[in-house]
Amino acid sequence: MRDVWIAAAAMTRFGRRSETLEDLMADAALEALREAGREPTALVVTAMDPEEFVGEGNFASHMGTYLGLSHVPAIRVETATSSGAAALYAGFALIASGFHNHVLVVGGEKMTHVSTPRVSEIISRVIDPHERSYGATMPALAAIVARAALAKGLITELDMAQVAVKNHANGARNPYAHFQQPVTLEEVMSSRMIADPLRLQHCCPISDGAAAVLLTSDPTGTKLAGMGQGSDYLAVRYRDSLTGFRATQDAAKAAFQMAGFGPERVQVAEIHDAFAPFEILSLEDIGLFPPGKAAKAAQNGELTLEGRLPVNPSGGLKARGHALAATGVAQVVELVWQLTGRALGRQVKASVGLAHSIGGLATNNWVTLVEQVA
Amino acid sequence: MRDVWIAAAAMTRFGRRSETLEDLMADAALEALREAGREPTALVVTAMDPEEFVGEGNFASHMGTYLGLSHVPAIRVETATSSGAAALYAGFALIASGFHNHVLVVGGEKMTHVSTPRVSEIISRVIDPHERSYGATMPALAAIVARAALAKGLITELDMAQVAVKNHANGARNPYAHFQQPVTLEEVMSSRMIADPLRLQHCCPISDGAAAVLLTSDPTGTKLAGMGQGSDYLAVRYRDSLTGFRATQDAAKAAFQMAGFGPERVQVAEIHDAFAPFEILSLEDIGLFPPGKAAKAAQNGELTLEGRLPVNPSGGLKARGHALAATGVAQVVELVWQLTGRALGRQVKASVGLAHSIGGLATNNWVTLVEQVA
Repeated sequence: MRDVWIAAAAMTRFGRRSETLEDLMADAALEALREAGREPTALVVTAMDPEEFVGEGNFASHMGTYLGLSHVPAIRVETATSSGAAALYAGFALIASGFHNHVLVVGGEKMTHVSTPRVSEIISRVIDPHERSYGATMPALAAIVARAALAKGLITELDMAQVAVKNHANGARNPYAHFQQPVTLEEVMSSRMIADPLRLQHCCPISDGAAAVLLTSDPTGTKLAGMGQGSDYLAVRYRDSLTGFRATQDAAKAAFQMAGFGPERVQVAEIHDAFAPFEILSLEDIGLFPPGKAAKAAQNGELTLEGRLPVNPSGGLKARGHALAATGVAQVVELVWQLTGRALGRQVKASVGLAHSIGGLATNNWVTLVEQVA
Repeated sequence: MRDVWIAAAAMTRFGRRSETLEDLMADAALEALREAGREPTALVVTAMDPEEFVGEGNFASHMGTYLGLSHVPAIRVETATSSGAAALYAGFALIASGFHNHVLVVGGEKMTHVSTPRVSEIISRVIDPHERSYGATMPALAAIVARAALAKGLITELDMAQVAVKNHANGARNPYAHFQQPVTLEEVMSSRMIADPLRLQHCCPISDGAAAVLLTSDPTGTKLAGMGQGSDYLAVRYRDSLTGFRATQDAAKAAFQMAGFGPERVQVAEIHDAFAPFEILSLEDIGLFPPGKAAKAAQNGELTLEGRLPVNPSGGLKARGHALAATGVAQVVELVWQLTGRALGRQVKASVGLAHSIGGLATNNWVTLVEQVA
């Protein structure tokens, strides 16, 4: 297995964008190619559902032509809301195997032109069909998780609100973030109820955006040190635990095993906070905090930009935004920028970063480790 | 790069099936697992557009749960109508890289429950949007290719019809084929015109079905000797040639290079005859016949089961059927069965087989080489 390195990382600002999906993805991809100064030998393209969001299929070839790279072999990879991480993994395997030397990975999604009820319907296809038939949506299932975590005393309503406050404070320093305004505890805790106990300000927005990285077999100093994937029952009702995600636990074990080090070396993390309580629960699933300790660490300020383990310096899904298939790639872009001193305004000191991405309601999760070795 | 082997190969009969997509895919997948006697460490799932055909997303996790393998990491890969080949390639890379030891690759599609105009609309998403806006469909674009090949004298109307006759004769011997009845030259040449010069009997049917293989790092005797991918402009109007597919030419070169041998060793081939003239043109693109020689070989009976190079012993897309993402996997299932003496009724003598899959209107093509070494 060959080592795999990151030669370039780029993204668009997330948000309500007027450009097409193709233009957003081209902006990120062409910026990454300019930065890398290398031609890709393969493309890995991801969008979660381009057929329904923008009416296009054959999306790998579609983007290859759009990027002026119609001669470069291209595949599309999809794992619901973690598709960006899955695309990175496919690119990782294509280089580690020796099949390719330089792989451009680009993820994007465009949703804000579609009515919110229709976006919700399309996204709800990621849920178990039986649960969906009872009206379950992603926020509704996340609310069940949050309610269980509250009942077990793993988190409080204040903890949930503080995640949003911290991540908006970070997003306010990130020119690529969807939301660049801070929110107060009061604003979060009095925002409109979406699915009890989750309020509007506990939930990530519907965002457009794109992100790209160029992976390569040439050592660059920024190493893709390990990736792990975990999975779980599509149906939430089949699971042993509501408040711990097996898919994250398995992904983290696999990623640390591949990297050859443990959570103690992680100095910055991008966590899938599509719903605020997921940030705290996930930190424990990954092993960055012992069970029951993450909420306390958050209360003590350990997760802020100045804390012991900055979490979501980008603003996370909550404030940077969640452009579905772009998100898993954008998390790694943020890590690369943090590790190489390019996260202006929100820079932390770190040489090892971790990204965590959730697919569906935690059915297909990923942990990615990036290490700056030079 | 580690060698990759095929431990099991299974498929459903293609056709108008009453089972769900999930049941079809489970039939193929569980049969492959029984045959292999190995648990997969990863799944690669493919369906071209499960969101629109059956209303399900997050399809890798969906199938993982359905197969009773919710603990096994799963990704979905998609490259339009060649998605089955792309999924094989992803599984190949996951093992060659050392990321996994046993990968179950399963592809399927269910379309016959959907009205034909709506199926056509969904499939047409694989075409360049500008060409689609003028009313282009896959048969319409294929007809342009066929007309150009006729005009250049590369094929005749009789050649096109003979492809269908041969492949139906083969399908009549294949219990897994959609169509198990022979057709006559007269029937083909008087069938309803679809897109001049393509008649109904030059075109593959809309089929349901599924196929699966278990890939492994354990030597089994049946080796995945090489795979190559090629790509081209999404827009047919941008291409240098209408009658040769660059995507096939590049895919073949890459596959033979990886395998370390040339076309002269190929003894049986499964070719993407979604439209009859594509079989003849593709044999030349791959290098199995010199330019301008394939039609003559077909006339001489060289492509029949008893010929020098049996082509589409399964019946091909024309008679075995074309269940989109199942097809690329099913082609390799047929090769494995042929190489291991399990193609009852249509058995040929071969130790090296080639599969060729076309994505979209030849934008994302694959060549796969399978070799029986023990």
